[in-house]
Amino acid sequence: MAERDLRFLGELAAQLRVDSVRASAEAGSGHPTSSMSAADLMAVLFAHHLRYDFEDPGNPANDHLIFSKGHASPLLYSLFKAAGAVTDRELLRFRKRGSRMEGHPTPRLPWVDVATGSLGQGLPVGVGVAMAGRLERMPYRVWVLCGDSELAEGSIWEAAEQAGDTGLDNLTLIVDVNRLGQRGPTRHGWDTGAYARRFGAFGWHTIEVDGHDPGAIDDAFQEAHGVRGRPTAILARTRKGEGVRAVADREGAHGKPLKEPEPAVAELGGERDLRVEVRSPDRAGEPYRFEGGELVLPEYKVGDQVATRSAFGEALAALGAARGDVVALDGEVADSTKTEEFGRAFPERFFEMYIAEQQLVAAAMGLAVRGWVPYAATFAAFLTRAYDFIRMAGVSRSPIRLVGSHAGVSIGEDGPSQMGLEDLAMMRAVYDSTVLYPCDANQAAALTVEMADLTGVSYLRTTRGATPVIHQRGERFPIGGSCVLRRSPSDRATIVAAGITVHEALAAAETLAAEGVQVGVVDMYSIKPIDTAVLVEAATTTGNLITVEDHRPEGGLGDAVLDAVSELGPRVVKLAVHGMPGSATPGEQLADARIDRHAIVAAVNRLV
Amino acid sequence: MAERDLRFLGELAAQLRVDSVRASAEAGSGHPTSSMSAADLMAVLFAHHLRYDFEDPGNPANDHLIFSKGHASPLLYSLFKAAGAVTDRELLRFRKRGSRMEGHPTPRLPWVDVATGSLGQGLPVGVGVAMAGRLERMPYRVWVLCGDSELAEGSIWEAAEQAGDTGLDNLTLIVDVNRLGQRGPTRHGWDTGAYARRFGAFGWHTIEVDGHDPGAIDDAFQEAHGVRGRPTAILARTRKGEGVRAVADREGAHGKPLKEPEPAVAELGGERDLRVEVRSPDRAGEPYRFEGGELVLPEYKVGDQVATRSAFGEALAALGAARGDVVALDGEVADSTKTEEFGRAFPERFFEMYIAEQQLVAAAMGLAVRGWVPYAATFAAFLTRAYDFIRMAGVSRSPIRLVGSHAGVSIGEDGPSQMGLEDLAMMRAVYDSTVLYPCDANQAAALTVEMADLTGVSYLRTTRGATPVIHQRGERFPIGGSCVLRRSPSDRATIVAAGITVHEALAAAETLAAEGVQVGVVDMYSIKPIDTAVLVEAATTTGNLITVEDHRPEGGLGDAVLDAVSELGPRVVKLAVHGMPGSATPGEQLADARIDRHAIVAAVNRLV
Repeated sequence: MAERDLRFLGELAAQLRVDSVRASAEAGSGHPTSSMSAADLMAVLFAHHLRYDFEDPGNPANDHLIFSKGHASPLLYSLFKAAGAVTDRELLRFRKRGSRMEGHPTPRLPWVDVATGSLGQGLPVGVGVAMAGRLERMPYRVWVLCGDSELAEGSIWEAAEQAGDTGLDNLTLIVDVNRLGQRGPTRHGWDTGAYARRFGAFGWHTIEVDGHDPGAIDDAFQEAHGVRGRPTAILARTRKGEGVRAVADREGAHGKPLKEPEPAVAELGGERDLRVEVRSPDRAGEPYRFEGGELVLPEYKVGDQVATRSAFGEALAALGAARGDVVALDGEVADSTKTEEFGRAFPERFFEMYIAEQQLVAAAMGLAVRGWVPYAATFAAFLTRAYDFIRMAGVSRSPIRLVGSHAGVSIGEDGPSQMGLEDLAMMRAVYDSTVLYPCDANQAAALTVEMADLTGVSYLRTTRGATPVIHQRGERFPIGGSCVLRRSPSDRATIVAAGITVHEALAAAETLAAEGVQVGVVDMYSIKPIDTAVLVEAATTTGNLITVEDHRPEGGLGDAVLDAVSELGPRVVKLAVHGMPGSATPGEQLADARIDRHAIVAAVNRLV
Repeated sequence: MAERDLRFLGELAAQLRVDSVRASAEAGSGHPTSSMSAADLMAVLFAHHLRYDFEDPGNPANDHLIFSKGHASPLLYSLFKAAGAVTDRELLRFRKRGSRMEGHPTPRLPWVDVATGSLGQGLPVGVGVAMAGRLERMPYRVWVLCGDSELAEGSIWEAAEQAGDTGLDNLTLIVDVNRLGQRGPTRHGWDTGAYARRFGAFGWHTIEVDGHDPGAIDDAFQEAHGVRGRPTAILARTRKGEGVRAVADREGAHGKPLKEPEPAVAELGGERDLRVEVRSPDRAGEPYRFEGGELVLPEYKVGDQVATRSAFGEALAALGAARGDVVALDGEVADSTKTEEFGRAFPERFFEMYIAEQQLVAAAMGLAVRGWVPYAATFAAFLTRAYDFIRMAGVSRSPIRLVGSHAGVSIGEDGPSQMGLEDLAMMRAVYDSTVLYPCDANQAAALTVEMADLTGVSYLRTTRGATPVIHQRGERFPIGGSCVLRRSPSDRATIVAAGITVHEALAAAETLAAEGVQVGVVDMYSIKPIDTAVLVEAATTTGNLITVEDHRPEGGLGDAVLDAVSELGPRVVKLAVHGMPGSATPGEQLADARIDRHAIVAAVNRLV
């Protein structure tokens, strides 16, 4: 590299450090030292390798840069400033109320794909973005900046396996090995070889480099660019707080502004106002999209016995035929979740993610970044494995569709490890989420299609066993709605059920009617948002609500109902799974959990 | 090995296969083929290497065997039968209602340490049990049987890193590489080298072996026994369904009983009634325990400003001095969670688990298996990373204590990625859990001690910022209790708060009183179990409840209160965090989320 170029890179990196120090000093918090270690790496990337049109963040040919070490946000924002995307004034609003310069990056900034800050997530999401590049035949590259500490996260190795095994050569991981975590030294310190051996074993090309040598960094990026058939991990040895003696490579300097920012800025050569010209991507044509067609939803005959998971699978395949932007992912249980039909029909758009639920969700997020419409499925129980990713998908406003099969005790003999009993609580608590739980095949099929146009995280809960079809084909099930299945002026209570318990509720209502007790039944297929109007009506007419759910008593349907009518004060009895199930048949499980028809009858009789 | 021994091992393995076929045929479900692949491995282990006294499962010198591939339960139960621990009759009650022979193993069986069935968990827990062995200076060995599919889970690599880095040579992993997952071939098929390279890179000794050759298996176990300073992974090439042509190495035979069990049993040489003599462990002395002493809890002066996380940290150190069985683990944030004081005082009993929350929780479970009293801490937000482990700890009835710091929007500038806003929902939904949320330092210290004697999963939620001490030193805070901080006969509403919002509630009550509106205030530090009596009294006297929490509206304090009074029907207004916070000061965050004193005053005025 020419001396002039090297001098510019040095100056640019110094500016990034200065601005990181200034922004966090102004904020009174933040991570300048974690920013300073990676400044040279990012200066070289922006000056020579990144292809990005900051004036058009929606340009489909743009590269993608993900700061997996989201706490290095001062560096990222300083880069945006150097690239001319934000002003110095906005930079100095870092961490202030209302500012887009948040403590950790979020997609409120148009150049940020996903929120980071929970470590170990940026790489898995980057893998998803790289998968999308291959799918849509676009030559963009995905650059992920990780810290060394976060390589302890298992999710990193799920990503390493996925990327290595599928040979994602459009993905470059840059690890800022600054040897210091939050509370002290990392496990492997500056042993970049330890990381190289691990990534190498997972099939990656690896490069070890001095992360403060711009020429060497440039060579490494160049080398990564030339690697075919494998992703590349650049393991860069750096010093945390590099450039300022008071903090460089010192413990105890994590996550706090420099005590003396002015001398630090002086030591770094003072403020600068350099501009880095990030090259726009070459014209690359439009992203490839698969053709769609007419939507021909499967239809089921009232009275037939069909599992909602099967209807979901058939509807997903129908949706895939209708819409070329729909993709599906599964955690090695496609024969159970029933995504396999989609996989057979659209193998290019189906991703087998194996038993790696964090990467499953992260890949869906990455695909959503590129405008794909992902459905990711596994057992409801195993989505708990990815809760932190789902939570962060909420923060990212990522439109991903999750499908959890084998919900509740009604799966039967397999026992509690396979039963989704906490999933409604988990999913309801996610920001802006939609939570759906169909009771029959026509409803499951319709809701599968409804999900396609939702924003944010949505969730469909399906049942293992066959249940009777009770809704007519062609019926609509809007998000936030419900179905009043039974209602009369003489109702003395209203049973609110969802999924498998709808059928128990209907049977209980029959029994009660024969005993002279009329009760209403509501099929509450949309648990979030919930149909408050119908609940309020029931609360003000019958005054007695019985909720019944195949889920723990906490955070599920019952709590959603209570919340909706909390200011009205009806009497509400919640039936839910209190004990610890063992093995038993589905019918025995429902009876033992006291959420079957007999338990409902008893609860109503007690209440009225 | 002598011909006679080899013959016996072959016969024993055949019996294990036969019994696996019989049990699952009788049940009409289960995983015989996944059992058959590992039969030779386990036959050799039981006959020659396992040291276990089946008559005294509490013998502290016993080895530990964990079936991480819990779906191979037919094999495990067949082994228990061969060892004389269960009868053939009980074996054939596999998956029946009320039977201990559950679909996946749980600790209802005295020889099972933890529930498995969610893949990728047995190895991390085994790492914890091996850590305990080193701590208590016991020579037992830990054997973990994994499937090949589950090696895709990131948690496996968190475990590999922890065990490799700390050189747990008392741990032997046996991988049943049968090449077939649930829905088809695994990623690496029979390429045992792929796995060996990965484990090798993480510092393990590896052995590749024919998993159907008893002599070679025996040699591998022998070799593992001799390895010092490193854990060993035995990568055994096997065939799923081995021994029965109709299913051996065939796709589509996962997780179902054999269609024709009788010919299969005949092909395997018919039923046998062999007994394997598992050798009891040598006398090994008592496990080492650290000395305890008097409990001298930290005390805080009313009016002082102290963060509950700091009080937790000081109380934990005090508890460590009082009880030699208390251990602490942290996810590389000990300076934030404040476990660092314990770590300084008791370095032998403190485990730095780095940023690997699944392994953090699993190690706590493993230590609890051995009778230690573990406290595991990280940010509340990052415990979501380990939700599947926490869920399964509930299934295992594992007495682990989790501590989540930096709860809620009140952390301030760091933004949503660092805010625990879903943790109460997540923890409440766990079976038999205890959920605690102190509002001041004396309460936090006392609750830290209360947790030590709890069964099941317990959770303490702590706050980042300093809050005023309002409770007297020496006050008791029983689990399931609450503190009525303000009550008068003229109360027109009762504010129910916990943690940081208690102080907002008290300030609001002052303001309201000055305006002539009396309201009660309850400090609901025990969110599960909750103090129903106090809530019922408030519901029946004031009839108006306002809940206020630094958490999402779903599944937290508000829902817990609604649940407690659901059959009484008071009016309840829930204040909680509805929107998506950005960066702001703690005070601004509380205001923006509308959970501060002003929001409470407004809610009360609206209600009364």
